[in-house]
Amino acid sequence: MTKKAVLLLSGGLDSTTTLAIAKAEGYALYALSFAYGQRHSHELEAASRIAASMGVKEHRIATIDLAAFGGSALTENAIAVPKDRNAADMAHGIPVTYVPARNTIFLSFALAWAEVLKAYDIFIGVNALDYSGYPDCRPEFIRAYQDMANLATAYATGEQKHITIHTPLIHMSKAQIIKTGLSLGVDYSLTTSCYDPAPDGKACGHCDSCQLRKKGFGENGMNDPVRYVA
Amino acid sequence: MTKKAVLLLSGGLDSTTTLAIAKAEGYALYALSFAYGQRHSHELEAASRIAASMGVKEHRIATIDLAAFGGSALTENAIAVPKDRNAADMAHGIPVTYVPARNTIFLSFALAWAEVLKAYDIFIGVNALDYSGYPDCRPEFIRAYQDMANLATAYATGEQKHITIHTPLIHMSKAQIIKTGLSLGVDYSLTTSCYDPAPDGKACGHCDSCQLRKKGFGENGMNDPVRYVA
Repeated sequence: MTKKAVLLLSGGLDSTTTLAIAKAEGYALYALSFAYGQRHSHELEAASRIAASMGVKEHRIATIDLAAFGGSALTENAIAVPKDRNAADMAHGIPVTYVPARNTIFLSFALAWAEVLKAYDIFIGVNALDYSGYPDCRPEFIRAYQDMANLATAYATGEQKHITIHTPLIHMSKAQIIKTGLSLGVDYSLTTSCYDPAPDGKACGHCDSCQLRKKGFGENGMNDPVRYVA
Repeated sequence: MTKKAVLLLSGGLDSTTTLAIAKAEGYALYALSFAYGQRHSHELEAASRIAASMGVKEHRIATIDLAAFGGSALTENAIAVPKDRNAADMAHGIPVTYVPARNTIFLSFALAWAEVLKAYDIFIGVNALDYSGYPDCRPEFIRAYQDMANLATAYATGEQKHITIHTPLIHMSKAQIIKTGLSLGVDYSLTTSCYDPAPDGKACGHCDSCQLRKKGFGENGMNDPVRYVA
């Protein structure tokens, strides 16, 4: 029987590459996305396109109310998305685009679905290099989460039934992530990474996420295939 | 300044007693309840009554879609709530009323709100004695959760800024919980614990939760003040 895995799919470059890696490893994939009060729905549309085109077994979108708690530029209109920051600024401190406890919450829903499916493998496309300011992208967080998950559920009962949180991208640079995805046939034109897209879905090109992405394609000697605002 | 705490409030006997304990310890309380696809809304009404009457600073109800994953008698109509089980049956195995990863998810939302509030204390009324079948009520789960939480967020940065998950009931019997609550002036007629109440909100008297509760009041030489179906 094919092993089942639950995969967190945002519709961005990282989670899509993670999907391609998990698929190449032979898992039957159950993709989970969230409508979490993010300011734009383009990433959910991207997630649905990617799930359909990359052959996941099932794609669910769970609605959760993160905006109720506020505290992030991604869920609160009153906080502006920073633009055109240089690499040194990006590398320091917690960006305002950090959403409190977001990965903790996302992984907890993945865990609930994994328990119902009896899936012992969960994939998340976190990256410790480009997002050094996000505490919930660090390897030590992922290890602690995995330890907790193995005590949290009724179906994880030991060595043969042990939950693993897979983070294949955690130590990769954006350029390495893109190179890996291209080698696995990922169509990056389907993805979206922008924190602040135009109403028609075009990427702004200036937020941290757009800048990291463009640089990653540049280092692979390519242009980013997504559409940017001219 | 009064220390803030986030408290998970279901509207049941345990979380209400936990609220009374946290209040007696002097915390400014932020109570969090969930509309999580449970089959009845009586417990949310009870939570609102309790929050109002016990002077919490703020009460929020977050809507989350646990029913989307299924897997529990509390969220799926197709699974029956067991009735009139004896103590030995209750003490063994995972009951069908277990909701996959529920406390993990609830604590993750509490953590998100705690980060926005800069609250380093989270209260949850879990109990390892009466709910030995629930993995996410065990002390080792709570410890692992706390370890993870201290790596998950941007505001928990060390000894002076350390998140504590408080579980004051974890080793108490139901009779001890009730005794503690009564000594703190809890009005248990406001609470509801039944897994399968009548449409008018009256408790069934026969599910595990009703049985444990009635026994607890009996051991204190009292009748349970909630209304039961005759």
